[in-house]
Amino acid sequence: MQGNTFGRIFRVTAAGESYGTALQIIVDGVPPGLPITDAEVQYELDRRRPGQSAITSPRKEKDKVRIVAGVFDGHTTGAPVGMIIYNNDTEPFHVKQYAKVMERVRPGHADYTFFIKYGRFRDWRGAGRSSGRETACRVAAGAIAKKILAREGIEVRGYTKEMAGISARPGLTWDDIVANAETNIARCPDSEAGERMIAKTLEAAKKGDTVGGIIEVIARGVPAGLGEQVFDKLTAVLAHALTSIGSVRGIEFGDGFEEARRLGSEDNDIPYYNEKGEVKFKTNRSGGMLGGISNGDDIVFRIAVKPTSTISIDQMTINVIKKRNEKLVAETRRDPTIVPRVVPVAEAMAAMVLVDFLMMWNGYRSLRRDMEGPMLGQDILSAPNV
Amino acid sequence: MQGNTFGRIFRVTAAGESYGTALQIIVDGVPPGLPITDAEVQYELDRRRPGQSAITSPRKEKDKVRIVAGVFDGHTTGAPVGMIIYNNDTEPFHVKQYAKVMERVRPGHADYTFFIKYGRFRDWRGAGRSSGRETACRVAAGAIAKKILAREGIEVRGYTKEMAGISARPGLTWDDIVANAETNIARCPDSEAGERMIAKTLEAAKKGDTVGGIIEVIARGVPAGLGEQVFDKLTAVLAHALTSIGSVRGIEFGDGFEEARRLGSEDNDIPYYNEKGEVKFKTNRSGGMLGGISNGDDIVFRIAVKPTSTISIDQMTINVIKKRNEKLVAETRRDPTIVPRVVPVAEAMAAMVLVDFLMMWNGYRSLRRDMEGPMLGQDILSAPNV
Amino acid sequence: MQGNTFGRIFRVTAAGESYGTALQIIVDGVPPGLPITDAEVQYELDRRRPGQSAITSPRKEKDKVRIVAGVFDGHTTGAPVGMIIYNNDTEPFHVKQYAKVMERVRPGHADYTFFIKYGRFRDWRGAGRSSGRETACRVAAGAIAKKILAREGIEVRGYTKEMAGISARPGLTWDDIVANAETNIARCPDSEAGERMIAKTLEAAKKGDTVGGIIEVIARGVPAGLGEQVFDKLTAVLAHALTSIGSVRGIEFGDGFEEARRLGSEDNDIPYYNEKGEVKFKTNRSGGMLGGISNGDDIVFRIAVKPTSTISIDQMTINVIKKRNEKLVAETRRDPTIVPRVVPVAEAMAAMVLVDFLMMWNGYRSLRRDMEGPMLGQDILSAPNV
Amino acid sequence: MQGNTFGRIFRVTAAGESYGTALQIIVDGVPPGLPITDAEVQYELDRRRPGQSAITSPRKEKDKVRIVAGVFDGHTTGAPVGMIIYNNDTEPFHVKQYAKVMERVRPGHADYTFFIKYGRFRDWRGAGRSSGRETACRVAAGAIAKKILAREGIEVRGYTKEMAGISARPGLTWDDIVANAETNIARCPDSEAGERMIAKTLEAAKKGDTVGGIIEVIARGVPAGLGEQVFDKLTAVLAHALTSIGSVRGIEFGDGFEEARRLGSEDNDIPYYNEKGEVKFKTNRSGGMLGGISNGDDIVFRIAVKPTSTISIDQMTINVIKKRNEKLVAETRRDPTIVPRVVPVAEAMAAMVLVDFLMMWNGYRSLRRDMEGPMLGQDILSAPNV
Repeated sequence: MQGNTFGRIFRVTAAGESYGTALQIIVDGVPPGLPITDAEVQYELDRRRPGQSAITSPRKEKDKVRIVAGVFDGHTTGAPVGMIIYNNDTEPFHVKQYAKVMERVRPGHADYTFFIKYGRFRDWRGAGRSSGRETACRVAAGAIAKKILAREGIEVRGYTKEMAGISARPGLTWDDIVANAETNIARCPDSEAGERMIAKTLEAAKKGDTVGGIIEVIARGVPAGLGEQVFDKLTAVLAHALTSIGSVRGIEFGDGFEEARRLGSEDNDIPYYNEKGEVKFKTNRSGGMLGGISNGDDIVFRIAVKPTSTISIDQMTINVIKKRNEKLVAETRRDPTIVPRVVPVAEAMAAMVLVDFLMMWNGYRSLRRDMEGPMLGQDILSAPNV
Repeated sequence: MQGNTFGRIFRVTAAGESYGTALQIIVDGVPPGLPITDAEVQYELDRRRPGQSAITSPRKEKDKVRIVAGVFDGHTTGAPVGMIIYNNDTEPFHVKQYAKVMERVRPGHADYTFFIKYGRFRDWRGAGRSSGRETACRVAAGAIAKKILAREGIEVRGYTKEMAGISARPGLTWDDIVANAETNIARCPDSEAGERMIAKTLEAAKKGDTVGGIIEVIARGVPAGLGEQVFDKLTAVLAHALTSIGSVRGIEFGDGFEEARRLGSEDNDIPYYNEKGEVKFKTNRSGGMLGGISNGDDIVFRIAVKPTSTISIDQMTINVIKKRNEKLVAETRRDPTIVPRVVPVAEAMAAMVLVDFLMMWNGYRSLRRDMEGPMLGQDILSAPNV
Repeated sequence: MQGNTFGRIFRVTAAGESYGTALQIIVDGVPPGLPITDAEVQYELDRRRPGQSAITSPRKEKDKVRIVAGVFDGHTTGAPVGMIIYNNDTEPFHVKQYAKVMERVRPGHADYTFFIKYGRFRDWRGAGRSSGRETACRVAAGAIAKKILAREGIEVRGYTKEMAGISARPGLTWDDIVANAETNIARCPDSEAGERMIAKTLEAAKKGDTVGGIIEVIARGVPAGLGEQVFDKLTAVLAHALTSIGSVRGIEFGDGFEEARRLGSEDNDIPYYNEKGEVKFKTNRSGGMLGGISNGDDIVFRIAVKPTSTISIDQMTINVIKKRNEKLVAETRRDPTIVPRVVPVAEAMAAMVLVDFLMMWNGYRSLRRDMEGPMLGQDILSAPNV
Repeated sequence: MQGNTFGRIFRVTAAGESYGTALQIIVDGVPPGLPITDAEVQYELDRRRPGQSAITSPRKEKDKVRIVAGVFDGHTTGAPVGMIIYNNDTEPFHVKQYAKVMERVRPGHADYTFFIKYGRFRDWRGAGRSSGRETACRVAAGAIAKKILAREGIEVRGYTKEMAGISARPGLTWDDIVANAETNIARCPDSEAGERMIAKTLEAAKKGDTVGGIIEVIARGVPAGLGEQVFDKLTAVLAHALTSIGSVRGIEFGDGFEEARRLGSEDNDIPYYNEKGEVKFKTNRSGGMLGGISNGDDIVFRIAVKPTSTISIDQMTINVIKKRNEKLVAETRRDPTIVPRVVPVAEAMAAMVLVDFLMMWNGYRSLRRDMEGPMLGQDILSAPNV
């Protein structure tokens, strides 16, 4: 309820601040018998951690994770999986840089809104709980979700589709993404565009500025039937999950906002039985969801990531204790862009949602019976015409 | 969990199909003493109901609501408010039109995915539970949410910003929206653009086709502080609520996807104290939310609505019982566009979210103490530099 | 959250007051294809309704239920099942009896606590939302839960074990309960004791007084494995469900409070493989739950029901508007005991919990793999002794 | 959902096994500005930990807690509070004692039911997740809940009312409990009875046996109004919370099961205005709750704790891997009784529930308006008599 738990059957709870002692993650609803190691979780965390490239924050955090509960002899036991990541970089002399401006809210950040909620008790050390640091917990939990999905033949992949105003070429395929998304620090499978993205980002960084971008995520192998009715459509819960990531400003499914400009006859995906008797769709404008329920096609969505709010340029702001306008001097340690670091976070959130819906759907359908036969309401066919 | 309940403290549960006996709505968490009448709920329902104009479905449904629980002597009592809307148009001879194609899924609709979940037990009568008819329940519940918000000085307004590819002029103000959004059947405050939207929609309709559009919603008077940490940001829950509406393909907050193309220095909203000592922002690119928590400025978001999937043009599709490809002949009764009808639905969902967060936040802060004083961690200021 | 919804996957939401227009029930999570009729729900409601015997309230309410959503052609569709029960007995001249004492709280009732919460907006007509009338909703929802359980081979039965201080003979079997619980108005399978219970109740009633009793509920056919870890044990959720029924003052599982007086060696149920290779237990002191999870044996629990608070004897009380002590004159229309009427309510709550846990458990275990083989941690067997 | 999270606004999530690396606790919904130290949490943990007396398990665990998130400069920040307790006693040569019987389920324990759910992946080391060890997490979270309650003038106290068949003398007052409950290792405020309880327990222990008992918990200072309608009554949620503790076999409120034997006229608590104009009750048979909502009087309930299932007497049982009946030899390390150790756990659960309801109620009532005035429905007073 307070926003630090996500999911229903596969349920992630997290705690921890940017410069607190540690981040804690508890993942409930993990089925027993899943082989999992610290190293597998670490692999995903390393994709997100700071200091991994020239276009990300130079903060020194190894984000070393340790599984402390729910795993025994290399396998999950059905008990909640507990993980902990200690923060390294928390010495008072480091934190002091933030202390000097503790009363001043940084434009674009949650400093002001956290002050409204938590007042003088707000943890101002590197944004505390509102720092992007919390996304390490999402990635750790997502690593487990991904392993569960892999056993079910489902894979989730994200990549940078646009950054610093530069777009990847259209028509990138799943194979392109699998082969190339991780080959450059922009996480763009179109490596030529990726290079230009990086150059443009470094150029902005040199001026003390930052850039944003657009991430596309695709989930392949998702069976038809995931998503609930009305309020908990798969679209809706994915939207919830993804826009809960800091700096995400919007989400669109399939062709998204572009669909608003089409005619109905141009937008419907036509289903058909292929020669194997499988249901396929001629197109995937819907992003693999009809009425908010997965239709067996690739799940596709995009999120908009704003430029990092922390910039190395002086800005005016407010001092919330002295209640006056003040100048906030430029900061030096920051991410020129967070777009490539958000890619694994977005994948993690999508994976968590998919596992959860899978369990939900399985629980529900386990009590279905007599599914074969004619549709209900056959007698209406013989109703009189009036 | 099954998707027919939304919210935490202010909690809406709904049931009912397109051609079932009735729609039922239960709204839990309504504070006692709110004056409310059937007519006030009816007012909002009339904005959504079919048959209201040349560009909406001609289906004859009065959507007559009756409050049957939770209200006594014209006031809410603190008990859950129960409402019922009987369907009129449910005679077998009417339903027969759907019976003829009960085995064929309509492209763009949830027919196929509902078949996957519910098999031969799917209610195929006008899409059953997956019909847009369920949005009447959202609007009825939203009417109560709006009344609660009004007492707190909060108002939620939506309008059509784009339809059939025609955009309203930029720079529309709150006053424009209040004064003009309801003056034309497009629900566009720019009446000149509205006329062109209507013409273009009717033109598509004549060819049996349909159009989509973009709706903007603004909430004014929202206090700073609404929204939870991490997973339940106000952005995230609004995204959940709004993308749960059928046909909504995306959502963006503030300047949304456009922000992905900006520099950080161009995107931050600068706060300041005005002469009255109030905190204001120079710009509202963020749509009134920082770190996913309301900042006191207008809440602003946009949703993309796809063109109505039901068209009067023949389409190929599958027969899920006979398991073969078949032609689906054109339907005649449909909405040329649902965009103007989605406007009150979008407002309703936003209002429900805001009331819920207001109660959440109030419950939480009621146990805060000693909020005045210096920020925590003053001693760090005297830490040595290393 | 406000208390009008119960359950997680199988989820019941209800509204309605004692003298409001109607009671509404929405049951979400009902699997598709369950045959269900109004009459089947009515059967259970008739077991609970007032006026059924000399020892229950003479109030005239037929409790006629109508399914208005979620059922098509005699089967559930997977959509939420909506039901409505209109109140008959709501004419102002009837309600007037309550109006005369609207400001006075009735001892033993929720009048005072509802006044604290809802103040002058409390619906005082026959206790409004805090009336036992709401239990009709529980029974209606429970009728659906029971039908689902019946398909899975699970049956839930309750009976009066003690009333007005008279106990049924010990050693009643499942067959006794099935055969005889419904044969007398006390709902006691020991008909001789039942007759004495009835006589004692009528004797108290003649003096304007009321009696309580103890109900035992048994669920047969429950598979081992239902119940979650730690906070959501089957015991805990049953306790929640059952003590949420008005007038229930306690619950005990298996041998319950008696176990507190035993030695460990007297209390453990010893498991064994029978000749068919099935796991059985020599005794069932635990009431079919170990560590809060069903063990395949009969689920057994008892609840204590206090005497009806409404009595036909003058009592002192407070006038909450005039803020003074006043006499409350004797009421004439009341239940000499509610014990037999609580039996179907208790069964309904237990059935709802069992269906919910069944879906929960099925969802969760659907993702288990590789369950056969040696226990984890075999290498510990070769650890050195220190 | 999986049972490792409890609460709604004040929400506790826990992980950790008996012989795993660590126990983790995350408490969400803690208001900002609460002064809290590791030592304060440790104080409560020390009341629960093993090895504290001759009648508890000799296991060597210091249960040393560390707060790693959500607290800054000695105060909560509004972020979730994360705590960790590392297990000391986890060396393979210690765990080996359990390994030798890993395939055999211990009678009375959750070994069998966990095996059904988690199969060969069950953590058998000292019962893993189903061990009473998890209650350390409850106590740690409860320590925070208690501090919040203390600021609101609410105190929760538990004590041993009966153990090994010996009852404390009737009529113990709040002052007796505060002064004496912690003065003997039985946690019985009647120290004479406490001595006999201890003697009887040691006598059973000498024979390898164990004993149970009854704990009473009282919460003083609880304002009237806590508890929701219908399904989430304060009684119901307390019952859920308390019966979720392992070994608890029942709960009763106020006079509980005894009320089932009374007449209505003997059971109603009569309210009155005292000379200060405060509402008081002549008696407190209801345990401070009417209609499941607190009435301002002391909250009183009792729980039955069964004798420890682990005994030092040989028992027959099943080997679930070899699927045959086998003897389980006597264990040596065990609690002769857990009753005194359950006292702080019961207090913790009650405190968590009370804080949660307090926030719930405050959130809800914050939107009430116009509470003063005449009751609704005055016009019914002039209805005709028919």
